[in-house]
Formats: sequence, structure tokens, C-alpha cells
Amino acid sequence: MSVSQHQVRSGVYFDSVMLMQLQRDLAALPEVEAAGVVMATQTNQALLAQSGLLPDGIEARPDDLLIVVRAENEGAAEEALNRVDDLLTRRRSLAAGEYRPRSLEAAFKQLPEAGWVLVSVPGKYAASVAREALEHDRHVFLYSDNVSLEDEVALKALAAGRGKLLMGPDCGTAIVNGVGLGFANRVRRGGVGLVGASGTGLQAVSVHLHQLGVGVSHALGTGGRDLSAEVGGATTTQCLDLLGRDPGTQVIALVSKPPDPRTAARLFAAAQALEKPVVVNLLGYPPPASVLGNLYFATNLKETATLAGALLAEDPADSGPLSGEESIQGFLRGLFSGGTLAAEVLFGLRAVLTPLYANLHVPSVELLDDPTRSRAHTIVDLGADEFTVGRLHPMIDHEVRLRRLRQEAADPEVGILLLDVVLGDGAHPDPAEELAPAIAAARSDRELPVVVILIGTDQDPQNVDDQESRLAEVGAKVFRDAGSAVAYLNAHLRLNPDWPGPPVALEDLAAPLAAVNVGLESFYLSLVQQEARAVQVNWRPPAGGDDKMLAILAKLKG
Amino acid sequence: MSVSQHQVRSGVYFDSVMLMQLQRDLAALPEVEAAGVVMATQTNQALLAQSGLLPDGIEARPDDLLIVVRAENEGAAEEALNRVDDLLTRRRSLAAGEYRPRSLEAAFKQLPEAGWVLVSVPGKYAASVAREALEHDRHVFLYSDNVSLEDEVALKALAAGRGKLLMGPDCGTAIVNGVGLGFANRVRRGGVGLVGASGTGLQAVSVHLHQLGVGVSHALGTGGRDLSAEVGGATTTQCLDLLGRDPGTQVIALVSKPPDPRTAARLFAAAQALEKPVVVNLLGYPPPASVLGNLYFATNLKETATLAGALLAEDPADSGPLSGEESIQGFLRGLFSGGTLAAEVLFGLRAVLTPLYANLHVPSVELLDDPTRSRAHTIVDLGADEFTVGRLHPMIDHEVRLRRLRQEAADPEVGILLLDVVLGDGAHPDPAEELAPAIAAARSDRELPVVVILIGTDQDPQNVDDQESRLAEVGAKVFRDAGSAVAYLNAHLRLNPDWPGPPVALEDLAAPLAAVNVGLESFYLSLVQQEARAVQVNWRPPAGGDDKMLAILAKLKG
Repeated sequence: MSVSQHQVRSGVYFDSVMLMQLQRDLAALPEVEAAGVVMATQTNQALLAQSGLLPDGIEARPDDLLIVVRAENEGAAEEALNRVDDLLTRRRSLAAGEYRPRSLEAAFKQLPEAGWVLVSVPGKYAASVAREALEHDRHVFLYSDNVSLEDEVALKALAAGRGKLLMGPDCGTAIVNGVGLGFANRVRRGGVGLVGASGTGLQAVSVHLHQLGVGVSHALGTGGRDLSAEVGGATTTQCLDLLGRDPGTQVIALVSKPPDPRTAARLFAAAQALEKPVVVNLLGYPPPASVLGNLYFATNLKETATLAGALLAEDPADSGPLSGEESIQGFLRGLFSGGTLAAEVLFGLRAVLTPLYANLHVPSVELLDDPTRSRAHTIVDLGADEFTVGRLHPMIDHEVRLRRLRQEAADPEVGILLLDVVLGDGAHPDPAEELAPAIAAARSDRELPVVVILIGTDQDPQNVDDQESRLAEVGAKVFRDAGSAVAYLNAHLRLNPDWPGPPVALEDLAAPLAAVNVGLESFYLSLVQQEARAVQVNWRPPAGGDDKMLAILAKLKG
Repeated sequence: MSVSQHQVRSGVYFDSVMLMQLQRDLAALPEVEAAGVVMATQTNQALLAQSGLLPDGIEARPDDLLIVVRAENEGAAEEALNRVDDLLTRRRSLAAGEYRPRSLEAAFKQLPEAGWVLVSVPGKYAASVAREALEHDRHVFLYSDNVSLEDEVALKALAAGRGKLLMGPDCGTAIVNGVGLGFANRVRRGGVGLVGASGTGLQAVSVHLHQLGVGVSHALGTGGRDLSAEVGGATTTQCLDLLGRDPGTQVIALVSKPPDPRTAARLFAAAQALEKPVVVNLLGYPPPASVLGNLYFATNLKETATLAGALLAEDPADSGPLSGEESIQGFLRGLFSGGTLAAEVLFGLRAVLTPLYANLHVPSVELLDDPTRSRAHTIVDLGADEFTVGRLHPMIDHEVRLRRLRQEAADPEVGILLLDVVLGDGAHPDPAEELAPAIAAARSDRELPVVVILIGTDQDPQNVDDQESRLAEVGAKVFRDAGSAVAYLNAHLRLNPDWPGPPVALEDLAAPLAAVNVGLESFYLSLVQQEARAVQVNWRPPAGGDDKMLAILAKLKG
């Protein structure tokens, strides 16, 4: 009958490779059936349990190392556990070949031109290694996961202030000047620059581009949480700016895991300030349009590559920002009779206007507490339930809308008005008769821009061409569909980009890549294989990984 | 100095047109400066306040009629209020021309072939009028808003059981057999059928189609809440089925306000069962792909029309459901090493698989409470933080994935496995070496289908072609991008559509439209203008609109 034995070790550190190797070594011992060597987290304990390897009633903290051996008999199990230290020592001596610096500082002395530091130590130690690297003015590729959001925010602020990139945490991939960091595919070099809060997303797009015969200038991972509300796209914004200035990048592709919508809006502002087409694929974020100025929206990773490839083949003069467009100051106030038109405009403009208020439920759009009063940028559906109790729909009766229009026009904070006019049977027999004088009045004092979305046909009782000319006559800018109005408003109202800190130096991208690697040795080896200069740090956690000792040391230092 | 006076009237009913006319009549009286005649809801009181017409310290309930007059002097204000009843009587006698039935039953006697009833009475009375119409086996176009969600659900269940449509509430528009109901544009007839939980959305698409020279077969509004979780797309499903069978409809376009994601999934299942292309634009719902079988996803209303027009011009044989595809029974289990690939697949498959579980946060996808155990359809990212404490990433170390793969293969409920394999520097030097035997073992007992998303290039250290052939050799279906895998899985795993109740008779659409109108007279007049046969009911609320009396009547009846 099988017998299991186990050990719990506290306050010790081994890297993941060492743990994997120890487990394999133990399992290979005579009469041993199976072995488990894991940090005793809940998930790891559950995985052990599924293999029938979790000892009953075990008491171990997530930080403890748990070693379990199942053998054919008691003696073999005991013997295996007794050999743990031997096995570890043997593995260590196998690894310890060439001389390796034991600190970042020593590594920089050995390779002063190393502009990048790769960090893949366990999450609880990763932030402090990354901080040290930033303080030495190096870019950091932070592969480690299990780093707290607070640490991420703080590290990115530190990085931005120094004009350096903190890529990560949980940053799986990058290609800098042709050299892959972490996980990276070998793809030809070319004119498409990639930015991604998404590891395999970046990898997949780079691969799809390669399959299409297109190449990649640089691929910059920013960490899966970079587009969260808390982090606010800090690294992605830097990367957009950097690739925007990079002469080797003609088209940019931006991919990410599901973003915070307000962060997405800030990134759109940054992307729209670039004089290059930007293909955007933010998972789970509904595209505000197919094309919005120089932004092109893709629905999946393959399409992202296809679009970027197609744009690269185009004349670059066809794209770029609408820099000729005059910017409109002040708030937008949209007074709608059609709920769906209002919603389409909201989904389109929430990507560029903030704060944006409405009396409709749209994610990241603020709900007006009092729909009879506008705040900041506002889109109000005057056909919503609260406006139609004992009152005709605003497509029939313009009274409420006309009054609101006067009110908005009198507000000095208002910079532009937006109305929809829906013709057809059942609607007001002649909207222009009432709306045109009101628009004229609104424009009489200060030429307030007024945009109208006019929905109707030549066969409608009101005749759409006649309505359009009468609205245009008083100075309204008339569009025949909501999407065109969104594009126009986007071009005139979009946010100013918010570039954090000093720009990242282009030379840092252009220089032959040299890096210091702290953590997984395989990442060091793949740098060497790619003929990049690299130094591996023989890293050990402070106080040998003993948390209690670490706390005492911190106190002594403090 | 101006003087205001007001009256509050309880338990009286006037329709919205009458209230608007009374307000205008009062404002036109000598020495009267302004007048307000509104139901005393919070919003209406706020609007009055903004016009300086809200009396101080007024006590009125939302059901009360509030009449306010501001005049140059006390006498004029008083005189105006005294004339209210006169003015109402005059308006009533102006309206009372021809004979009009006072009940639905009388209206049906007058026009027995009326297959449709338009209801636009105030929300609090609308449900009971709609119910009566359904009980007489008529389709109902329910324009009224302020109808409760509970009433909507109950009415739609009643309608579905009788093979009738309950379009609405808050249904602004429809075009049935060439005749517009409610608000509708005059557009040419043709091969595109529209379904929309969105009034102006439907109107806009019909107009854009007309502008493109394309015509509309029917346009069926379903009410803005039809795609909510509670209503579950009840009417939209009926309409999809109906247009699917309609010989005059070659292409269907489906638009809606932001849908509940699970409802969206059910509608996709219904749409995919049709042998026609369906263009889909669900506001705020990120498209799972650009094309998914016979579904085509548009990002805005204009594009919806453009796509539908283009599909109409195509050979219809090119579209239609993938009826030749074999359906796979059992659950999908996806074991991923790449978080973004997992997320792309989740966003693609949540549209067709339910319930779907994952260890990633994706709206309408259930979060696994224990990521080490799958439930129903599951996609698990084995590179997530909880799996990598003290453990190498699954792109490097396959141990956890191999074990999970064996576990899933042994589960008789599992019908198909999905894996990603990401090549490149930093990753495992030869994934096929470990994965191929495991896939072969999983397929040895029951030929379990295994799908692999393989991301890599010909230049990667592992060589993608070699990896592909070794995985294909053991029977894996290999795709080189996530989108293609999603399309494949969708075709083999999609839900069976859930058609509610008996089908709606095609003849009801094909017959010349005849309707009974209860509520806004302008809707009746526009039917007549369009040469449809129609009867206007001279509707009055039960008990003259006196809520207390109504409650007593209900008790006596009960």
C-alpha cells in the first residue's frame, strides 16, 4: 500500500525552476510513485488534492514550501524526504557555472550599457527589484505576476517621472529593436509598432502580421492591468507617444484585455494626437465606430493584424489626425427625441468626451440625477419615460426641447448643441418651422455651433431635402446619420492628450538591446541566443526569503 | 407685477393632446403671460420651475393635473383658471366629429379584419388595453411608455402563447406590409426585413437603406426593453422567426439598445438557425467577430444598412447557416496558457455558449469559484496569478495543463477540448513533444475532439509548421488564430434556438394592413393617409380616470 509523507518549510526561497526540478528529482527516486513540491497556496493545495497528494489536516501558509512524497512504502517516502537538501545542493552546484553578479548594481557595473532590466522574481519581491532598476534609470520589463495594484501604480509614476518604461507587471512579451523579451515570437522587422496590455494578444498580432508578410518595428507590452481605472493606461500612453515619434513605425496597433472605459477614452485622445494610423482592439470594448479619424477599430486579433497590414500598404498621407479641424471650446449639449440615436452618439462620444452625462444607462457615462438640468457634456433623451407623462413625444411636440434649447444656448459654458430631427408619418408635420427659428436665435449672439442629425427620406411627408436646407439656412451643420455626426464631433471636441512626464528617449529603442535579467534564467538564455548582450543576476531574496527576518531588517533600516 | 395662480385636479383624465391644447389656449388669453398644464410628476414640476411657473409649496401627486397661469394681474389669472372647463368642452366638441366606437369590442365589430391594435393611451392604462386586444387575438403595437416591466413580461407571455406579437411597450415604430405604424419613414419596399428593440434605430436603418436604393420588407419594433434579462428577447425572437419564414425578406437586420448579454446569446442562436444572412447591431455589445456563420456584425446604424444592402446584392446561396456542420454534444473545456487568447475566445463564445465559466472577469461569463475545477462550459487561463505562485508559467511548464487535460478527458460530460499553444523565445522548446501524446491519450477512448490554437512563426525556435503537423497527426484540429477557432466552435457548439409558442402566421404580415387605434389620434390619421383601413376608438379610462373609483370597481369585479 502506498504511503505519503510530507514536509513544510517556512522562510525559505527557491525559484520556480528549482521547485519544478526538485519535484522531478523526487519523483524519479526508487520506489517513489509521485511527488509534489509547491508553495502552499489555496490553488496549489487544491491541485495537490486532485492528484491525491494533499496530506490530511495540513497546516501551511501560502508562503510555506510544501513537499509531499508518495512512495511504495514508509521507508522509501522517508528516504526521499531526507534527500531533499542533497538534491537542492546538487541542482545549485549544477547551475553555478560562470561568475554572476549578486546585485543589480554589480550587474550594471559589468554591463553599463544595459538599458533594460527584466524582472521575473516571485511577485512579493518583484516591486522592490523593479524600483531599484528604475532608480538606476533603466527601463523595466516586469514579467512577475502577483504584484499588487498599489505597487504597480507607484512604480509607473516613478517610471513616468524619469522618462522610463515600467512594462508590466505580468508583462509576458516585448520585442525591442528586434530582440524578444520574455515570451516572444521571431517575426520579421517592419513598419507596424505594437502596444499591448496583453501578452498573448501582442504575440498573436505579431505572428499574424508575420504570416501576412508584414513586419514589426517594436512590440511593447504594458502589463494586463495597464488599462484599468487605477493605472489609467500610464505605460500604454508612454508607448503610444514613443511609437508615434519612432521613424521606423508607420502604423500602430493597440491591443488590450478589457479596458476601463474612461482609460480607453484617454488612450483614444493620445492615439488621435499621433500622425499615424492606429488600429485598436480593446477586448470587450464596443468600437465607437469602424473608423474615427486616424483610429481603426478591429474586432479580433487576426483582424487587427489584417487592418494594420492594409494601412501600412496605403499612402500614409491618407491617414493621420484631423489637425486642420478647428477645436470647439465648451460643453456639448445634445437634446434628443430618439433614444437609440442618443445611445449611438453616447457610445461614440464616451470614447472622447469626459465627463459625459446622460439620462440613459451607458457604462462610463454618468447618470444625470436631474434630467431637466445638463451638466458638463450632456446628452439627454427627451423621449424618455420621465419626460412623457401626460405629454406628447418630442417628435410630435417640440415645446420641451425648444425651451431646453434656449436654456442651453444661454449657458456660457456651452460650446456646441446637438439635435436629432426624425421625420416620417406620426412625427411633427414640419420640424424646421419650429426648430429653425430657435436655432437661429441660439446662434444670434455668439454663432453657437449647432449640429443636427436629420433622419428622413425624400418620400416622407415633410421631405428631408427641404427640411435640411431650411435647417442649414440658419447655420445648422446637418448630417443624415448619427455616425457622421459622431465623427464630426469627435474631430472638433476630442480631449487633449495627457502625456505623463518627460518623453521616453527614442535612442533607448534604437540602441542595440542590452539587458540585465533578474529571475528566470531561460529569459537570459533566450537573450543570449538572440545575440543580445545580457547579464544574469544571481538573485536571492533579502534575508534569504525569511519574512520575519525581513521585517526586522526593514525596521532596522527604517 | 405678474401674478400666478394654480389649480390641482385629482382623478381626472385628459389625453396629452388635450393638455397641450389647453396650455396653448390658456397662454393665448388676454393679459396671460404664460401657462403650464401638466401631470404633476417630479420631472414636470422641475420643468415648470425652470419656466418660473411652479407655485411655492405646492402639494400635488404625480397623478394630479396641475394647471398654472401667470398673468399681468390677479383678475386675469383668476379669469383664465375659470375658463378651463369651457376651453376643454370646446376642444372636445371640436374633436367629436364622426361616430367612434367607445370600446375595442365595438371597434372590432366595425372593422373585423383589423389584425392590429395600436395602443398609445397613458402608461398606467396601457397594459389592460393591450391585454384585451391580445385576448381578441390581435397583434398589438404598444406605443405607450411608462408600462411596468412585470406587465411587459406578462403581456409578452400571453402574446407568445397565442402566436401574436406584442410590440412594445415604448415601441415607436413599425412598417407592416408597407404601412407605417406610430413614427415611420416612407421608404421603398424591398428585401431587407428589420427587427429592432429600438425605435429611432429602426427608423434610421430604414432611411439609410432607402438612401442606398434598397427597400424594406417589414420593420418590426419590439420595444426598448425587449432584450433586457427579464423580457429575454421574447418579441424579437418571434420576429426573427417570422422574417426568417417571410418569402419577401432576403436579408434581416437586427438592431437594439444595449442588450443583456445572455439575451443576446439566445437571439444569436435564433438568428443562426435562419437560412438568411442577419446583420446585427446591438448597441454597446462588443461584436464577438465580424462574421459568425450567417451573422454579420455592424458598429453603427449606417453600417447596418450598408452591410444589409451589400448582402442583399450577393448570391443568397453564399450565406445561410452552416447546416452541414456536425453538432458536438457535451461541454467545452478550454485550457489556456495565454490570458488574452482565453479572453478573445470568451468574448466570442459567450455569444453562443451558456452557462460559460472562466477564471477571468468577462461580463455574463460566470466566475469559477474554484479555478482548479471546471463546470459546464469552462475556459480557464492557467497562466492566471493563482496558478503561478512558485510555479513556472504554463507556456514553459506543461505539468498543470497536462494533468488538467487528463482530468477533463476522463469527464464523460466533456464533449470537446480547446488548447492554445504559443511558440517563440522563452516558451517551452517543444510543446508538441508533451502535448501530442496527451492529446492522443485523450482521444484514445472516444475520439474526443481537440481544438488547438497555435500561435507561432516559421522562424520561431520550435517551428510552427512542424508543431502543427505533429499536433494534427494525433487528431487535433489546429487553427493559427483564435478567431478561426471561435468560428469553428460556434458552428459546432451553438445553442438550439428557443422559439416561444406557436409561430406567428405569415398571412398576418401579408394581409393588407387594417388596424384599430386606441390613443393618439395622429396615429390614426397617418394610417388613413397611408390608405390603410383603420378605426379610432374614442377611448376614456375606466371610472373616468378616477383612481379611487377604479380601485373600488376592481374590488367589485374581483
